[in-house]
Amino acid sequence: MYGLLGRLCSSEHKQKSLSETVSFSEYLHGMATLKIPEVVPSPEQDSERLKNAFDGLGTDENAVIWVLGHRTASQRRKIRETYRQLYNESLIDRLHSELSGDFRKAVILWTYDPAERDAKLANEALKMSKKGVKHLKVIVEIACATSPHHLMAVRQVYCSLFDSSLEEDIAYTVSLPLRKLLLGLVSSYRFDREEVDLVVANSEASTLHEAIKTKKLDHDHVVWILSTRNIFQLRETFDCYKQNFGNPIDQDIKSCGNGDLESLLKMVIMCIESPDKHFAEVIRDSIVGLGTDEDSLTRAIVTRAEIDTMKIREQYSYLYKDSLNDDVIGDTSGDYKNFLMTLLGERL
Amino acid sequence: MYGLLGRLCSSEHKQKSLSETVSFSEYLHGMATLKIPEVVPSPEQDSERLKNAFDGLGTDENAVIWVLGHRTASQRRKIRETYRQLYNESLIDRLHSELSGDFRKAVILWTYDPAERDAKLANEALKMSKKGVKHLKVIVEIACATSPHHLMAVRQVYCSLFDSSLEEDIAYTVSLPLRKLLLGLVSSYRFDREEVDLVVANSEASTLHEAIKTKKLDHDHVVWILSTRNIFQLRETFDCYKQNFGNPIDQDIKSCGNGDLESLLKMVIMCIESPDKHFAEVIRDSIVGLGTDEDSLTRAIVTRAEIDTMKIREQYSYLYKDSLNDDVIGDTSGDYKNFLMTLLGERL
Repeated sequence: MYGLLGRLCSSEHKQKSLSETVSFSEYLHGMATLKIPEVVPSPEQDSERLKNAFDGLGTDENAVIWVLGHRTASQRRKIRETYRQLYNESLIDRLHSELSGDFRKAVILWTYDPAERDAKLANEALKMSKKGVKHLKVIVEIACATSPHHLMAVRQVYCSLFDSSLEEDIAYTVSLPLRKLLLGLVSSYRFDREEVDLVVANSEASTLHEAIKTKKLDHDHVVWILSTRNIFQLRETFDCYKQNFGNPIDQDIKSCGNGDLESLLKMVIMCIESPDKHFAEVIRDSIVGLGTDEDSLTRAIVTRAEIDTMKIREQYSYLYKDSLNDDVIGDTSGDYKNFLMTLLGERL
Repeated sequence: MYGLLGRLCSSEHKQKSLSETVSFSEYLHGMATLKIPEVVPSPEQDSERLKNAFDGLGTDENAVIWVLGHRTASQRRKIRETYRQLYNESLIDRLHSELSGDFRKAVILWTYDPAERDAKLANEALKMSKKGVKHLKVIVEIACATSPHHLMAVRQVYCSLFDSSLEEDIAYTVSLPLRKLLLGLVSSYRFDREEVDLVVANSEASTLHEAIKTKKLDHDHVVWILSTRNIFQLRETFDCYKQNFGNPIDQDIKSCGNGDLESLLKMVIMCIESPDKHFAEVIRDSIVGLGTDEDSLTRAIVTRAEIDTMKIREQYSYLYKDSLNDDVIGDTSGDYKNFLMTLLGERL
């Protein structure tokens, strides 16, 4: 049966005209917390301000936060270029020598171009993956919770930085069965508009249910459905799954076991269904318990501050009945805290 | 053993400094037959000339060939844009109504942007694939005989033209086992420089040999090797295969049977090893026998005229002891012949 449905062409096809459909980026529009001043200084002025912050007696961390924490990705890119032209040094290198600790990590991650940042995070994750599968979750986030265009840009930058392709490194670093799933996900270039077919959704919900029932979570069909269908179609499929088989799909996956594949698959579904909920969880997990997982906290806020941190904050409040801002403030301190709160829109 | 080798990091690693390595595009540089005049007219002048060719009594086909047959892809793109601005009509539509037959098909295919052209060819191939697997070979050509950057551009254009992704359409149109192979190939974004590791090549030659010996040509490892490794690494792997196991790999694949998978796999290897040899064969096959396969002949010349038609001509002469130009002239006529010969550099 599977495969015969072909393209989205049934009578129940929820096709909308192009003006009615939204892309992933449009869907999230206005959900970022990053605040940009109404009159943005020129890249020359920003570079000069940064240079002064570095050159004085001790570094002026507040100035660094003030400038970089209030600029979009394209504005930061121009600052990096201008800074290099003006002072013949790399802004990243200078930040590295001037700052320290988690603050440094966060500012540098933020200063990279988003595709460059994610390529570096993915490479780091692959290096760390031998120490535990949890490190691979950043790859799921890049593949499933960002736009198809961004994922493609990440793959291009990855090749230029690491002399190999992202999928090549996954194929020869990650073991089965995770390898197969991750390879499919990072290689995808999904259609980026809302184009949903109910018949396909119902049929593919059954295919997924069959795989879960028989505990064949690494079946080719599972990988193909999750890595080729558009995000909106997949959300419909997960809805159909719940309607037709009683439980949310992630709950049924849990019943297959507590292995790495189950845990990664649940994350795939969460990143597709509700990226804001996923990142609210990442932030919560990084804060609760003994000590703070600063790397995860930084990653969640830095990578989403220009996308959907406003929605993440709402989700956080809904899920945990706590304020995300208060929790971040409670678990961080100093420049690191100030920088994260700036990205969360609280310090203009 | 497979998977443990990881990245290309052995002592036998043939790493070269960046200035020594070449990309696929650089490798083919200077191998095109397309001839551009030393002084190229402006897009406005070209548009006017085309408009005059259409508007006179009967179409002036020679003028169409004269203009479009001597312009690069980016020059043709500018002509299309300018033509639309000046005359408020689509150049493609006008070509469609003014020209006819194989000549029309060839000129229109040539006038499209290369990524747009290949996206359309791939979509057409998928629609035709029910009538025979031979139609899928154009997808192998796009995935294995063009640059990684071009393949990515094709996937982007495909989404914008057909409201679904190329891999989605493959997953739900093509049957197993071809589906798996094609999905892997079109999703790849290979590292585009010469980076070769002899240890990896030897090990992966063994993996391929094992798959062939056990007739498991659709094994995941086969797909991963062919779809993730860079072109230069794969050529080394095929060389190792021949050295270690006696026969060229395509010959051994042939011994597995005459099925569709065997035939597609041989083409994958040929497109990776020697695209010029592959296209020489396509042209030869389109010419020999009763009648001419104009679609294949057009595709081979139009898609390669800016890449490696000079190498294809040499291969053709070497393989068949015939002149490619003479054979094309012998099997075509009129404007169609004149246009193909122009792309082959023979009519400036």
